[in-house]
Amino acid sequence: MRPSGRQLNEMRPVSIETGVTMHAEGSCMIKCGNTHVLCTATIDERVPPFMRNSGQGWVTAEYGMLPRSTSSRMRREASQGKQGGRTIEIQRLIGRALRAGVDRQALGERQITIDCDVIQADGGTRCASITGGWVALRLAVNKLLKSGALVSDPLISNVAAVSCGLYAGQPVLDLDYPEDSEAGVDGNFIMLANGQLVETQMSAEGATYSRAQMDDLLDLAQKGIAELVAAQNAAVA
Amino acid sequence: MRPSGRQLNEMRPVSIETGVTMHAEGSCMIKCGNTHVLCTATIDERVPPFMRNSGQGWVTAEYGMLPRSTSSRMRREASQGKQGGRTIEIQRLIGRALRAGVDRQALGERQITIDCDVIQADGGTRCASITGGWVALRLAVNKLLKSGALVSDPLISNVAAVSCGLYAGQPVLDLDYPEDSEAGVDGNFIMLANGQLVETQMSAEGATYSRAQMDDLLDLAQKGIAELVAAQNAAVA
Amino acid sequence: MRPSGRQLNEMRPVSIETGVTMHAEGSCMIKCGNTHVLCTATIDERVPPFMRNSGQGWVTAEYGMLPRSTSSRMRREASQGKQGGRTIEIQRLIGRALRAGVDRQALGERQITIDCDVIQADGGTRCASITGGWVALRLAVNKLLKSGALVSDPLISNVAAVSCGLYAGQPVLDLDYPEDSEAGVDGNFIMLANGQLVETQMSAEGATYSRAQMDDLLDLAQKGIAELVAAQNAAVA
Amino acid sequence: MRPSGRQLNEMRPVSIETGVTMHAEGSCMIKCGNTHVLCTATIDERVPPFMRNSGQGWVTAEYGMLPRSTSSRMRREASQGKQGGRTIEIQRLIGRALRAGVDRQALGERQITIDCDVIQADGGTRCASITGGWVALRLAVNKLLKSGALVSDPLISNVAAVSCGLYAGQPVLDLDYPEDSEAGVDGNFIMLANGQLVETQMSAEGATYSRAQMDDLLDLAQKGIAELVAAQNAAVA
Amino acid sequence: MRPSGRQLNEMRPVSIETGVTMHAEGSCMIKCGNTHVLCTATIDERVPPFMRNSGQGWVTAEYGMLPRSTSSRMRREASQGKQGGRTIEIQRLIGRALRAGVDRQALGERQITIDCDVIQADGGTRCASITGGWVALRLAVNKLLKSGALVSDPLISNVAAVSCGLYAGQPVLDLDYPEDSEAGVDGNFIMLANGQLVETQMSAEGATYSRAQMDDLLDLAQKGIAELVAAQNAAVA
Amino acid sequence: MRPSGRQLNEMRPVSIETGVTMHAEGSCMIKCGNTHVLCTATIDERVPPFMRNSGQGWVTAEYGMLPRSTSSRMRREASQGKQGGRTIEIQRLIGRALRAGVDRQALGERQITIDCDVIQADGGTRCASITGGWVALRLAVNKLLKSGALVSDPLISNVAAVSCGLYAGQPVLDLDYPEDSEAGVDGNFIMLANGQLVETQMSAEGATYSRAQMDDLLDLAQKGIAELVAAQNAAVA
Repeated sequence: MRPSGRQLNEMRPVSIETGVTMHAEGSCMIKCGNTHVLCTATIDERVPPFMRNSGQGWVTAEYGMLPRSTSSRMRREASQGKQGGRTIEIQRLIGRALRAGVDRQALGERQITIDCDVIQADGGTRCASITGGWVALRLAVNKLLKSGALVSDPLISNVAAVSCGLYAGQPVLDLDYPEDSEAGVDGNFIMLANGQLVETQMSAEGATYSRAQMDDLLDLAQKGIAELVAAQNAAVA
Repeated sequence: MRPSGRQLNEMRPVSIETGVTMHAEGSCMIKCGNTHVLCTATIDERVPPFMRNSGQGWVTAEYGMLPRSTSSRMRREASQGKQGGRTIEIQRLIGRALRAGVDRQALGERQITIDCDVIQADGGTRCASITGGWVALRLAVNKLLKSGALVSDPLISNVAAVSCGLYAGQPVLDLDYPEDSEAGVDGNFIMLANGQLVETQMSAEGATYSRAQMDDLLDLAQKGIAELVAAQNAAVA
Repeated sequence: MRPSGRQLNEMRPVSIETGVTMHAEGSCMIKCGNTHVLCTATIDERVPPFMRNSGQGWVTAEYGMLPRSTSSRMRREASQGKQGGRTIEIQRLIGRALRAGVDRQALGERQITIDCDVIQADGGTRCASITGGWVALRLAVNKLLKSGALVSDPLISNVAAVSCGLYAGQPVLDLDYPEDSEAGVDGNFIMLANGQLVETQMSAEGATYSRAQMDDLLDLAQKGIAELVAAQNAAVA
Repeated sequence: MRPSGRQLNEMRPVSIETGVTMHAEGSCMIKCGNTHVLCTATIDERVPPFMRNSGQGWVTAEYGMLPRSTSSRMRREASQGKQGGRTIEIQRLIGRALRAGVDRQALGERQITIDCDVIQADGGTRCASITGGWVALRLAVNKLLKSGALVSDPLISNVAAVSCGLYAGQPVLDLDYPEDSEAGVDGNFIMLANGQLVETQMSAEGATYSRAQMDDLLDLAQKGIAELVAAQNAAVA
Repeated sequence: MRPSGRQLNEMRPVSIETGVTMHAEGSCMIKCGNTHVLCTATIDERVPPFMRNSGQGWVTAEYGMLPRSTSSRMRREASQGKQGGRTIEIQRLIGRALRAGVDRQALGERQITIDCDVIQADGGTRCASITGGWVALRLAVNKLLKSGALVSDPLISNVAAVSCGLYAGQPVLDLDYPEDSEAGVDGNFIMLANGQLVETQMSAEGATYSRAQMDDLLDLAQKGIAELVAAQNAAVA
Repeated sequence: MRPSGRQLNEMRPVSIETGVTMHAEGSCMIKCGNTHVLCTATIDERVPPFMRNSGQGWVTAEYGMLPRSTSSRMRREASQGKQGGRTIEIQRLIGRALRAGVDRQALGERQITIDCDVIQADGGTRCASITGGWVALRLAVNKLLKSGALVSDPLISNVAAVSCGLYAGQPVLDLDYPEDSEAGVDGNFIMLANGQLVETQMSAEGATYSRAQMDDLLDLAQKGIAELVAAQNAAVA
């Protein structure tokens, strides 16, 4: 029934390759099917002004899409003179999600910036950015631990994200672009490794949903998140 | 236990005054406790370019805060040269939410713009904007029906929104600013009059939540939405 | 002869309600007929860089119009990415006018920002902003005097403003929008309570005027200012 | 008493050299003492959108200062990404003033843009721009008359401008920078050749003025305008 | 003598992988040592306004660097609200260079946009962009030829680019970042396959060069270009 | 054969008038035929942040064109909200070129900004800006030497620039606009007084060039530069 022939509760193949750029303190290329996102982590020994002298660190994120990551070419945001509303919404989400897995006191007064740049898009780029962004973060923190700059691990859990939605009336896991563009209801679910929720964003365009349908999607999401956490752990092992 | 002395499941007093500006096709001032938002609806007989010749209408929204609607003065976005990420996120949400209650085919090729301007803020401005924005929309559509420009009603349901969160470990309904700034988990719930969900946004900062807690908040939200829908209906009667 | 049926030298009804927002140090809603402006005063214990270590205070103003304050909806300046020329001209005028009534040495090194936001427009918004802005300023200064932060009053006089113009060949006082859009010559007159002039702006579009006509308008303005000063004093009493 | 040794009612030497650039349809370099402004007129056979199909023409102006036209270097507005409030105010004034001398019906549906670029500033740049701008306009219109594009002259009068102010308690004509920076009250007066007023802008910073003082300045202005009109006529003869 | 141990006239290893993104009409990842640039070609069947009805096509380019392509993180141009001077200079150069190899009449009225996004930077990104950009262009044109949209080949030659400079007093070929940051004189040389020059940019910072030195660098460049053209041809074969 | 009737190796008449503005530390109006550029030098006793505590000075440049310096009116960059790519490219070039003639250690920690504003354009404005900019720089440095702020001269050589190109198949010196708009190949050559090269920019649009042709143009450039250096020396003598 799904355009890709997948089962309703079947994820796309996930691969996470680490160490893909020579300059970043942590990096990976995450591929969820045909969605490919390059995630890098940059450590800065200063925090932004609103965090100074708080004794706490900060994790933030930026998101971008290459102009031809999409089916038809998008105008480059740099040449349009501003980041669009969608970009801003997504990068705020990525930062907020990753901070949920961090003990900012233990991180100390430093900032880690996660850059998520979409090389190729086929639906679910924000979820891939969070899942891959956590891997880049993990690698950067490992570097701080190895160098002795940090003595205890500030990461309290994996953070991963997956989308689910109602496609042709059925709850499906991990929507690709053909599904995403048809689904009237879809959600992004962000969880820790133990299934605790970090963020739920379910929205409808030209449709609504019941609490029972919401529960179905949450069940699917939990299954997907478990698989993503396993992939993250394998990548950073 | 709540700073305001309210019960856990008690809303702030809601008042909705209609017809508050002479120029707009629909308008109201909604007051949810000390949060006051002026909502106006503008009818434009043209749709934006991406909707032309679709036979469908469009509903969109813009949101702003007056500089001194808040405890300390905020810089005016017009003088900063751009709308911040939070503003853009909120106005996209308001538009998406209101469209869920509209049969866009029945609306015909016209656009209704809902402007939500916060006169005084004390938490929950986006929810008040949606609830009040629907009233402005209803009044503008009534005008089209009365003039004969529309013959059947394109509004399929009320749309209302309320926030809930975990405050001091307890689920509470309709957070005011002192609660909102303390709550580690809070959500915005948007529903139709019949309780169908339009959007769920639950996020955590420095905390996480279980599915059971999420269910508690949804129960509270349903109670609140019912009261808001009653207030909307009384206002437009 | 006037569209509103007023006498040539008759003002619109003026009302000034104070204390209309809970956060600002001073606030009022001024209504000059159908022109409604919300004015707030914000005290900042720092002055802008160009005034530092001068021993003097500063009073500045910002001006905005809500998108649907006007007959047809105006684009929001925040979404256009800049304040238009008219906005900038008006807010510079408001600040300059209010400073004329202030002993900046006596104010001490602090800044008071007056925000004037037009809720509903029907001509004369800049004059209403100055007249109402002074009330907000007066209330904020009263607060400083009451708290002991100031021991002597830095306000040396009321400041008020009114427009006059040549409508259908006759000098008229306090133009509303239907008059304003027809008048070839119109002026804004700003005065202290004793009739001393602070600013005169008379301009013509597609017309000119003689010194005798200018004198007629100044006579009208003096009458109007006296009434506005009385309304200000009643409001802050 | 004046820093320059001039009499109270004495203008600075004025020179207007025409035909100073090869491309413009009309041009002059106006020098009012040490204030030097290059004024050019460009004819465009189309009017801006808001004038289309009105049968009327339009005259508009733009104003700029070279970075080192002033005593200390000003940042280039092009590199700051916007024109400042002062620039916008001045160019709106120049356009409005020049239109007062034009029969826009007779001009026909074309636009003339006057560019005023300050090469060297020593006070009174906006007045010099108006006076010199009229000369550029006159020359461009002459070209249209000569070519037969226009058969009757759309210019109904010269337009000229001069500043006056209260310096050390005395009314003085044509302020230079040392006077301008000291004067608490100063005004710009724009008139036709016959002394009819086009615009009066009198403002005070840290001072006020009486109607008698205003009359004194108007007397001075009339004397100055007469001299400027003579200089304009000599230049275009 | 060179930090990398290379001979004076030795290029870094070059690899060009084609078909690296699923959406673009042509794409490659070019790696010149540690400099990695993703190049994509997008065909648009419309030309920009200035080329309409000319019967000729257009080739243009855009350039960007991922924030962490460099040793320390660069601010994202999209969030800074504009493309920097260096970016604009480079993308104008890439477009101009590639057009030199195109018969724009034969291309017909369509535009091909080459996006060059630097994934990892180690000197020479603009040269790699031109060399890789030509491969993407070649592949996109091949697609047009194969589909029959083009019947004769509009590409008249390969276009490739290489940098040379004076490092420690010696002329060296294909500077990497450690050399580039030390070299007082360096140049970018763009040529066709037959050695005809398209563009020469030799500049010095804190140094100068003689015509004899310029000739030495041109000799090196010719050797390098020949190798790059061979790599291009192998990649597209 | 040349539109102007000049010989292939004949420059346009050059004049350089110094001391043309009263405020700048150095200034000149350079006229290369009908191309007129006003160049001013501003001394700032602070360097930009990236040079602080380096013990070295900085020379930078900005470039602009008056709106009607060209045949048809150009939009003012200040009103467009940004400097175009061409402007940015040119001002970077001017700054880089002038720095080649400066011993920045000897200049000490101060910055000199060269503003080049094109009053009238007829081709070759960037070269005229460099040649005239050097004169302004020389005069400003002379002022520092005279005042004792500098004891040894930081200028190590004149810097001048000229354009050459292939026009109608022939190498020509100092292109005017009619030649420039036709030439398929043209270059800008910047040299010291002794003929050492500072920058070579040869580019082609719709054409290519051989090394032999490049040599011809370099020969012409050397002749032109020698004449420009003589004119510079005469002007500052």
